[in-house]
Amino acid sequence: MPVSQYAVDVALRWSDMDAYGHVNNVQFLRLLEDARVAALADWLGNHDMLDSGIVVNRHEIEYLAPLVFRPAPVRIRLWPTAITATGFDVAYEMVDPPEVGTGLYARAESGLVAFDFDTGRPRRLSADVRDRLRDLSGETVRFRWRRR
Amino acid sequence: MPVSQYAVDVALRWSDMDAYGHVNNVQFLRLLEDARVAALADWLGNHDMLDSGIVVNRHEIEYLAPLVFRPAPVRIRLWPTAITATGFDVAYEMVDPPEVGTGLYARAESGLVAFDFDTGRPRRLSADVRDRLRDLSGETVRFRWRRR
Amino acid sequence: MPVSQYAVDVALRWSDMDAYGHVNNVQFLRLLEDARVAALADWLGNHDMLDSGIVVNRHEIEYLAPLVFRPAPVRIRLWPTAITATGFDVAYEMVDPPEVGTGLYARAESGLVAFDFDTGRPRRLSADVRDRLRDLSGETVRFRWRRR
Amino acid sequence: MPVSQYAVDVALRWSDMDAYGHVNNVQFLRLLEDARVAALADWLGNHDMLDSGIVVNRHEIEYLAPLVFRPAPVRIRLWPTAITATGFDVAYEMVDPPEVGTGLYARAESGLVAFDFDTGRPRRLSADVRDRLRDLSGETVRFRWRRR
Repeated sequence: MPVSQYAVDVALRWSDMDAYGHVNNVQFLRLLEDARVAALADWLGNHDMLDSGIVVNRHEIEYLAPLVFRPAPVRIRLWPTAITATGFDVAYEMVDPPEVGTGLYARAESGLVAFDFDTGRPRRLSADVRDRLRDLSGETVRFRWRRR
Repeated sequence: MPVSQYAVDVALRWSDMDAYGHVNNVQFLRLLEDARVAALADWLGNHDMLDSGIVVNRHEIEYLAPLVFRPAPVRIRLWPTAITATGFDVAYEMVDPPEVGTGLYARAESGLVAFDFDTGRPRRLSADVRDRLRDLSGETVRFRWRRR
Repeated sequence: MPVSQYAVDVALRWSDMDAYGHVNNVQFLRLLEDARVAALADWLGNHDMLDSGIVVNRHEIEYLAPLVFRPAPVRIRLWPTAITATGFDVAYEMVDPPEVGTGLYARAESGLVAFDFDTGRPRRLSADVRDRLRDLSGETVRFRWRRR
Repeated sequence: MPVSQYAVDVALRWSDMDAYGHVNNVQFLRLLEDARVAALADWLGNHDMLDSGIVVNRHEIEYLAPLVFRPAPVRIRLWPTAITATGFDVAYEMVDPPEVGTGLYARAESGLVAFDFDTGRPRRLSADVRDRLRDLSGETVRFRWRRR
């Protein structure tokens, strides 16, 4: 359960469906990407942490219900978690917007590392950025299907 | 470490790169999908378990090195693990083919469930299929970046 | 110049950009696809002409300005043209919504054929459908770069 | 009919199929892109004309037969045509490799312009490059579905 209810609505594309007539499992991560791009711009602004200074080092996702293309967007709730000196996780839930329904389609988590492309090494997040992330932060995801 | 060395070479596409000039992190899962489609056809044949009777319920992936488009394919080693009555995991390593280099780009795991689309419920794998999967099976993946 | 000003706004995705940092030329057709899916549902409804009964037999597109990802959508104006007994063209212009700018990014045309999947042959459009299409129809596209 | 029989085999991906169970019409252009990237590297090398110095200003494609995912690649024959001082067209035919079948899936043409990214303007092709392109060149495409 996120403490914050920050969310981004992302439009589906007809081509997100695969030959089974459902939104393809890999496309779910594509949808999360767009929510994350919007959220990071919003959370971190363009000072201190450019989008290009963040590297994804991990994704974990579980699928909870099939999703079919429709004109209405999906709502992606997302929040920072597991904040460290050099990075943080983003936790996600993909749901229906309330006016569309009550579907819960997926839960996921991405590991992000702040990176200095000049030196080729991880870099420290500023105290300001960490404060802002902590204000938005919530619990880590409890995955249903995780094996171990 | 896989016991089996089953592997599928998958061609990159120029468009797999994103605006950072690297193969996009989501596209890694697209490459794994093609290796998995080839492997399942090979491992399970078309009797008993059609491709359409397998549902992905989970992915976990960690990124170990950036990958740039090149004419040479990536090699995806993959093997079944965590076999149960109704499903199994596929573990993956994405590497360079030996003639190209020694890169290790990603490790991943997908959860697969055998599914009966008529009844809308998971179904049991046949003893034959489980035997074949066990012959090919290897260890679960030890993720470097997993937080918990 | 369209007689009709029917238009659909389509959201860009960050991943629409390629390694050159522009929306990839092939993705332009992906954006047109979503505008067309929305327009056909709107123009033709679900009676008489299901989406699945329309086949694309041709695309022509010319690129007029580079497009970079941004949160704002592109506006795609589209209208039927060259209506025949068994099909029609869709003409498109991809532009900025007025509140975003005055960019003109591409002009395009797709050939559509009404198709009967049971018989595997083109089929006639009903008089009703043709009337509705004619009410919306405009000129064919004058391409700037067409060679011949 | 090409004079030259230069061709590139491109692997399909399972995800190239859309909800109709056929390779999506937009993905055809994705397949052509990979053939073109390989061909331009081969035809032009890395001296004089970098890949990044070529801009697509036009595509035209017609679809001749539906294509379904299979492990075997498609063969894309391609050749330069309509060579001018600052650009050329690439003509394509997408077919089965001979060992797979005799399918002809699409014909297409792309307009390419040599571009100087520093000045933001088209630039002249060198005499050497034009000579090499002329050696490879063939007829322009005769489209079956072109309306006008």
